[in-house]
Amino acid sequence: MGEDDEASTPGTSGSVLTKGRMESMSDGVLGFAMTLLVADLALRPPGSPLHQFLAAWPAYLAYLTSFLTIGAGWIAHNALTDGLDHVDRIFLRLNLIFLMLVVFLPFPTHLVGEGLYGNIAAERVATVVYGISLLAIRLLFISLAAYCSSTHLRQTDTEDADMRETRRKFGIVVVGYVATILLSLLAPTIAVIVYLVIALYLFVPFRTVMHELSGGRAK
Amino acid sequence: MGEDDEASTPGTSGSVLTKGRMESMSDGVLGFAMTLLVADLALRPPGSPLHQFLAAWPAYLAYLTSFLTIGAGWIAHNALTDGLDHVDRIFLRLNLIFLMLVVFLPFPTHLVGEGLYGNIAAERVATVVYGISLLAIRLLFISLAAYCSSTHLRQTDTEDADMRETRRKFGIVVVGYVATILLSLLAPTIAVIVYLVIALYLFVPFRTVMHELSGGRAK
Amino acid sequence: MGEDDEASTPGTSGSVLTKGRMESMSDGVLGFAMTLLVADLALRPPGSPLHQFLAAWPAYLAYLTSFLTIGAGWIAHNALTDGLDHVDRIFLRLNLIFLMLVVFLPFPTHLVGEGLYGNIAAERVATVVYGISLLAIRLLFISLAAYCSSTHLRQTDTEDADMRETRRKFGIVVVGYVATILLSLLAPTIAVIVYLVIALYLFVPFRTVMHELSGGRAK
Amino acid sequence: MGEDDEASTPGTSGSVLTKGRMESMSDGVLGFAMTLLVADLALRPPGSPLHQFLAAWPAYLAYLTSFLTIGAGWIAHNALTDGLDHVDRIFLRLNLIFLMLVVFLPFPTHLVGEGLYGNIAAERVATVVYGISLLAIRLLFISLAAYCSSTHLRQTDTEDADMRETRRKFGIVVVGYVATILLSLLAPTIAVIVYLVIALYLFVPFRTVMHELSGGRAK
Repeated sequence: MGEDDEASTPGTSGSVLTKGRMESMSDGVLGFAMTLLVADLALRPPGSPLHQFLAAWPAYLAYLTSFLTIGAGWIAHNALTDGLDHVDRIFLRLNLIFLMLVVFLPFPTHLVGEGLYGNIAAERVATVVYGISLLAIRLLFISLAAYCSSTHLRQTDTEDADMRETRRKFGIVVVGYVATILLSLLAPTIAVIVYLVIALYLFVPFRTVMHELSGGRAK
Repeated sequence: MGEDDEASTPGTSGSVLTKGRMESMSDGVLGFAMTLLVADLALRPPGSPLHQFLAAWPAYLAYLTSFLTIGAGWIAHNALTDGLDHVDRIFLRLNLIFLMLVVFLPFPTHLVGEGLYGNIAAERVATVVYGISLLAIRLLFISLAAYCSSTHLRQTDTEDADMRETRRKFGIVVVGYVATILLSLLAPTIAVIVYLVIALYLFVPFRTVMHELSGGRAK
Repeated sequence: MGEDDEASTPGTSGSVLTKGRMESMSDGVLGFAMTLLVADLALRPPGSPLHQFLAAWPAYLAYLTSFLTIGAGWIAHNALTDGLDHVDRIFLRLNLIFLMLVVFLPFPTHLVGEGLYGNIAAERVATVVYGISLLAIRLLFISLAAYCSSTHLRQTDTEDADMRETRRKFGIVVVGYVATILLSLLAPTIAVIVYLVIALYLFVPFRTVMHELSGGRAK
Repeated sequence: MGEDDEASTPGTSGSVLTKGRMESMSDGVLGFAMTLLVADLALRPPGSPLHQFLAAWPAYLAYLTSFLTIGAGWIAHNALTDGLDHVDRIFLRLNLIFLMLVVFLPFPTHLVGEGLYGNIAAERVATVVYGISLLAIRLLFISLAAYCSSTHLRQTDTEDADMRETRRKFGIVVVGYVATILLSLLAPTIAVIVYLVIALYLFVPFRTVMHELSGGRAK
């Protein structure tokens, strides 16, 4: 029970059971974060009821962007853990920090939905905070993937198609986020649309879709 | 790792494990959307406490309708995925879009609960948006089912009784929603009652219930 | 695919898979309903911060009562489904109606938390609606259990200890709720305390606890 | 079916199935409590948008502390139940009381986020209530662990590394909480920072991290 003992004994934390609970907890938290996004939607007075409904468009845009981003995060998380044989104590904690960042996202999403009605200063703060949150989620996820690769957690050498796609898109997405955060300072409304484009880029598996449409049989 | 390679290699996304997580994520999101509906219930001033409680009836009606609709959606989703051998990358994404539409439903449910106190314009917007949301959920679900049928995802040729019922009711329900959306423009309060009737039609397995009541042994 | 065919074919809805999803959905919804209860807690102005915190006691009392009631409901639900071999189409729908009633509970819980500051009329409405909700949850649960007993869903003849306890306590609890609803009309504050006593009666397995304390080895 | 019979018959509550549902319910409730924390985040008027965003720092601090505390609680809960062969009726109820305390945490978290703007009296109440909640969660958890040890629920004699760490840290953490509750009366703002330090102490597995960094191969 000494100090060395604890660190070197293979803990049962790495068991298959714990992997199952880590997945079910992650599914729950990612799903709740998606659902919580809708709690911010509301009519936007003044004006006629139809006008108030349509005037809330920035909130819908932010809802769509955040939902797709969390959805793409869930798919990537799924693809990552699918290839794992087991998890360890560090992984469990990195995973919780990843979830903490995802759970934070409804707050900046709300700021973007509100901010676009305000003055340019409010828009800037909202879109910069939103971009930093999106970037932090992505960076934490890739750290999680790097941790898995650098340790003994990976079950197989062959990666899932979604995991390969996540890795391939990583560089472009990080550059895209940094550029859009800078753009936020100048043109926040345009930046929000670029965040949606990045979310769509993360979410849609273009090659598989094209292959499917061209008559192929893609998995 | 070339482009063709990625699209043609059977990804491990299609594994049984991923199907399990897709189901647990869907269960979580559908369950949470149901629970979130209650957050909108509130007393309706002015008047005596009893009057305020009873005056909130449109919110109760909308709560009941949305709960039954999401409940019927869960049963149909369950019946669909029960017959699947595995899922693929396109399915995971279509499923997330289906969930995104379901998660949106508490917002129009809230509008209906509030709208029926407003003028006719507010009622119209609320009931039309509500009807379009219900219709979109149904159309996305049938696309999901069609995708499963057109690809290799179906495990067996025999369909679950709930899946057969979902398909048989589909045409009537879509026509019903479109007609009720049009009715919403003229008589929003009546439209809300028709939405409830459609939700009951989706939820109750009439033939099985009758068979059961007539002394038969239905599964 | 005819009408008779649908009703008589053993549907795959009765599969083990569907039972698992019904349980995970129920766990999710019962868990969310418990968690949502806390969203209503708030300081109660005016007064010093300590006074405001303590003045919110009716909300804490209602939170405790509702949490214990839903907790006892979860234990009973667990005990019921544990003994089931499979579920059928009617069970899935009765279960959703049971969940709908449980999910509704945070609303009357909130009314009780607020109502005890109001006049006697507000207290009466809150405690009567609360009592009717508690009674409805219990009646629906016993219907669910009766449906399982009357059909082929039960796996074994021996019942779980928690299920036996639920059945034995049923009569007393129903009489208790009806009496407390009547008491609510006269003395709402006392009624809230009686609801807590009933919740404790449902939650605590007195005999097992006593047996354990007296040195026995109870499971 | 007599009284003695009930207490002494090994109930099927102790089955593997029930353990699975207890875990999935606990994962759901702990995950939802984490997610609910973000619902309290909001801009802090008056001032420029950037100022309002930064002025909300006490809420961010409380969010971080509560998230790490619940996260550490989830890891410890996971480590505890991983070593259990089955659960019994008392365990299910103790576990629900543990969850009830965790679910309560978003309320004092909110008080801390708000309280630090108020006068010293508001800060005191918020930080004392927060500390008592954190202490109660820890005490209930160790009772849960003690109950498992004192009965037949433990599967193996070897404990998971996270469970050993939880036990070893227990004494220090309890003393830390009691001292910080006392400190809250004098210097609430400093107390909030100490709560974060304790949360980090609970969350980070220092020895494993150091071992990992020094080139070792820790599980």
